[in-house]
Amino acid sequence: MKDLDFKRNLTMLTDFYEITMANGYFKHGHKDTIAYFDMFFRKVPDDGGFAIMAGLEQLVHYLQNLSFSDEDIEYLRGRGFDEDFLDYLKNFEFKCSVWAVPEGTPVFPGEPIVKVKGPVIQAQLIETMVLICINHQSLIATKANRVVRAAEGRPVMEFGSRRAQGWDAAMYGARAAVIGGCVGTACTICDEAFGTPALGTMAHSWIQLFDSELEAFEAYAREYPDDCTLLVDTYNTLKSGVPNAIKVFDTVLKPMGKRPKGIRIDSGDITYLSIKARKMLDEAGYPDCKICASNSLDEIIIKDMLMQGAKVDSFGVGERMITSSSSPVFGGVYKLVAVETDEGDVPKIKISENVTKITTPGNKRVYRFYEKETGKAIADLIAMADETIDPSQPYELFDPDYTWKRKTVKDFECRELLEPVFIKGKCVYKEKSVAEIKQYCADQISTIWDEVLRFEYPHTYYVDLSQKLWDKKHELINQNRN
Amino acid sequence: MKDLDFKRNLTMLTDFYEITMANGYFKHGHKDTIAYFDMFFRKVPDDGGFAIMAGLEQLVHYLQNLSFSDEDIEYLRGRGFDEDFLDYLKNFEFKCSVWAVPEGTPVFPGEPIVKVKGPVIQAQLIETMVLICINHQSLIATKANRVVRAAEGRPVMEFGSRRAQGWDAAMYGARAAVIGGCVGTACTICDEAFGTPALGTMAHSWIQLFDSELEAFEAYAREYPDDCTLLVDTYNTLKSGVPNAIKVFDTVLKPMGKRPKGIRIDSGDITYLSIKARKMLDEAGYPDCKICASNSLDEIIIKDMLMQGAKVDSFGVGERMITSSSSPVFGGVYKLVAVETDEGDVPKIKISENVTKITTPGNKRVYRFYEKETGKAIADLIAMADETIDPSQPYELFDPDYTWKRKTVKDFECRELLEPVFIKGKCVYKEKSVAEIKQYCADQISTIWDEVLRFEYPHTYYVDLSQKLWDKKHELINQNRN
Repeated sequence: MKDLDFKRNLTMLTDFYEITMANGYFKHGHKDTIAYFDMFFRKVPDDGGFAIMAGLEQLVHYLQNLSFSDEDIEYLRGRGFDEDFLDYLKNFEFKCSVWAVPEGTPVFPGEPIVKVKGPVIQAQLIETMVLICINHQSLIATKANRVVRAAEGRPVMEFGSRRAQGWDAAMYGARAAVIGGCVGTACTICDEAFGTPALGTMAHSWIQLFDSELEAFEAYAREYPDDCTLLVDTYNTLKSGVPNAIKVFDTVLKPMGKRPKGIRIDSGDITYLSIKARKMLDEAGYPDCKICASNSLDEIIIKDMLMQGAKVDSFGVGERMITSSSSPVFGGVYKLVAVETDEGDVPKIKISENVTKITTPGNKRVYRFYEKETGKAIADLIAMADETIDPSQPYELFDPDYTWKRKTVKDFECRELLEPVFIKGKCVYKEKSVAEIKQYCADQISTIWDEVLRFEYPHTYYVDLSQKLWDKKHELINQNRN
Repeated sequence: MKDLDFKRNLTMLTDFYEITMANGYFKHGHKDTIAYFDMFFRKVPDDGGFAIMAGLEQLVHYLQNLSFSDEDIEYLRGRGFDEDFLDYLKNFEFKCSVWAVPEGTPVFPGEPIVKVKGPVIQAQLIETMVLICINHQSLIATKANRVVRAAEGRPVMEFGSRRAQGWDAAMYGARAAVIGGCVGTACTICDEAFGTPALGTMAHSWIQLFDSELEAFEAYAREYPDDCTLLVDTYNTLKSGVPNAIKVFDTVLKPMGKRPKGIRIDSGDITYLSIKARKMLDEAGYPDCKICASNSLDEIIIKDMLMQGAKVDSFGVGERMITSSSSPVFGGVYKLVAVETDEGDVPKIKISENVTKITTPGNKRVYRFYEKETGKAIADLIAMADETIDPSQPYELFDPDYTWKRKTVKDFECRELLEPVFIKGKCVYKEKSVAEIKQYCADQISTIWDEVLRFEYPHTYYVDLSQKLWDKKHELINQNRN
């Protein structure tokens, strides 16, 4: 496995205000103050019913590599910070505890998906990277899962590196796409690093380099008789590309006793072309030759193509998945929710004139309730850290906005979503392969009701607060209103 | 300066089909074939009138670091490639020539912005990274420039790291945003590496950590009396935030003989709040205290705010700029356009059922014509490599689609846009600071007519073909139609 990020020190990839504040905390009596921060998001991209958690492994590597180099200290000295604070940074030792929802888990707006407890200086400094890691990969995993579901069982390949927003976006975006359900990626380095199968045959340049399309196809078939997928739209798909492909299947592959793998169509009206091409291939005796479609696809276009009877066996999806172009921002935020004092944890709130920006205070746990009979997820419950749920007893859930909507659940199982990743600076995270995470993700999605999985106007999954937490939140809102 | 990318080997960040093809070329008589590739784009993001070229420096570093490690070779061996090809890769020496439009230059659809000439195996292998580098940073520079122009001279800060699509997207996106005109960034590592001023004061967590907003403001003002910008929307902007800020300006800064720098509003109706806050600050004797606005801004919202009289002195722009969220893909492509043979260069074309996907063949140059009197750019001309323009003679330009639209230009100056970056593998690129590129960009934009700069329905800038090139292109189209 290739080392992509293990040794990369991204300590200085932090918003400058994190450093300004860290220095302020250091100087103003909060050097050893312990604070709690939650990462959560407010809206699912594409107005979907759920998101998929991803990017945790990269966050872990970042936290393991936290340290300020002499060069970093020199830069900060130049920015005017005092020697005592610089000394603190020079001897920086990560002491926070971190909990996170495992990668591949369906997650919902408003619930903590990462929780950090530790010296406020440290918990503050890591904000930017916590958010980048989780926001980016969760965005792409969520989008990829939409695309994969639209393809209704047909394989989807991630083809977007060239349009990704930078190199990491290509490499880790491909990783996230596979977690979300893609069978593989065109991104070679991602395969080398994560074992996500990399595939790819030819571009138009291959065809153009040879004197004719036929010669180009012949050369390719000779070199790759066992994996012969030909790109048929360089000149004219139906008049030239498909006929030439069939000719080469007949004259090069057949004598070798080989069957063609497929053709790829990358432009034009792919629904129409695929139906025509399918007919030509079938009539030529190649009903087993697959048709792959690419060219600015996404879940909407794929659904539409399949509805119109496109004869496509697999999809290569590029720019619209690797950038989540219809909804390119995963809006995770990272908010201070409590401070440890001699009298115990003091929950903290942020009020806002935008109601959705009011935070849920306190040190919390997140439980997912599953119906025993079906195994389906009923609701998530955010509770105070000292609350435990006894699944043998009925539990009353209620809507945190419309509190008269109440429902008592029985015969449920429940599971805590936030798992320890660091304990007081010590990493306790167990690495999983991307294939394992992908499988876990598929299994977890099967616990979500169809109504929540729907693309358009999905049912809003319940994310409720415990009575105790709801009371505390509203006590703080009222306190601040007065 | 921090080394961000100089030593990073991203050779394996390539689409798998580049390797499949490279091996095929190697095996099928094209080991030493010299080919020409052009990178160009088809559409300006956000339907704007022009894009800004960026990302070249990172492309140069990538090309300087090209080499396959033992680990890479081992991975490729596992993927079934033969030893002779692996030997070639093991001894890979970059031999291509590369020309590119300088960073910061306004560029237009259809014209080559990068040109590569070299062994087809090599020119093919680098496709993915050529595209990632230029697509990503050009996207962000173009978007940032829109935002900066909307702010009409008010400083714009890049604040988007946390919502960037990965770490590189944060670091290099910030670099591109500064090239596009931002005064600085919140991204510390970008400042450390590129000298793009990093700024930032406090998040809501600072306020929340203290027992009250007033205490939090006092602590901050004491620590940073010379750079005191206070975030006023944690609890209630007008009832609590602004009054507390004024109190601290009076009680902490005034006795020290200091003036406040500003307040920041990050939620709510910022237009309304800024007008009210401005009045409160003025009445309290702080007309010099600036108001900074942030919170999901972009060029459309900024224009609207200013139209409604928002009293905002500077803008912090985050997710919508760092992802170019309204148009998050820069669709640059990289196409084979000619092959060198014993009889000279043979131009190559890619026909497509999508007319816009037909390529312009041949080894080419790009000239920009400027009106002598005004210094304004008249048109860009794509010509064959053996054509030169004599500005002392009139030149007839014509529309490549509507060829009866013709215009003879006189009194012009002209400049070649593509500059050498590598000559047969040797780097001839001269590094420039981001500040220089930013200044060059601003100067170049001043050569563009207002009609092209317009946000909505801009005039389409002329990108014409020389008669000779037009003839060759249409000869090839006709050849392929028959």
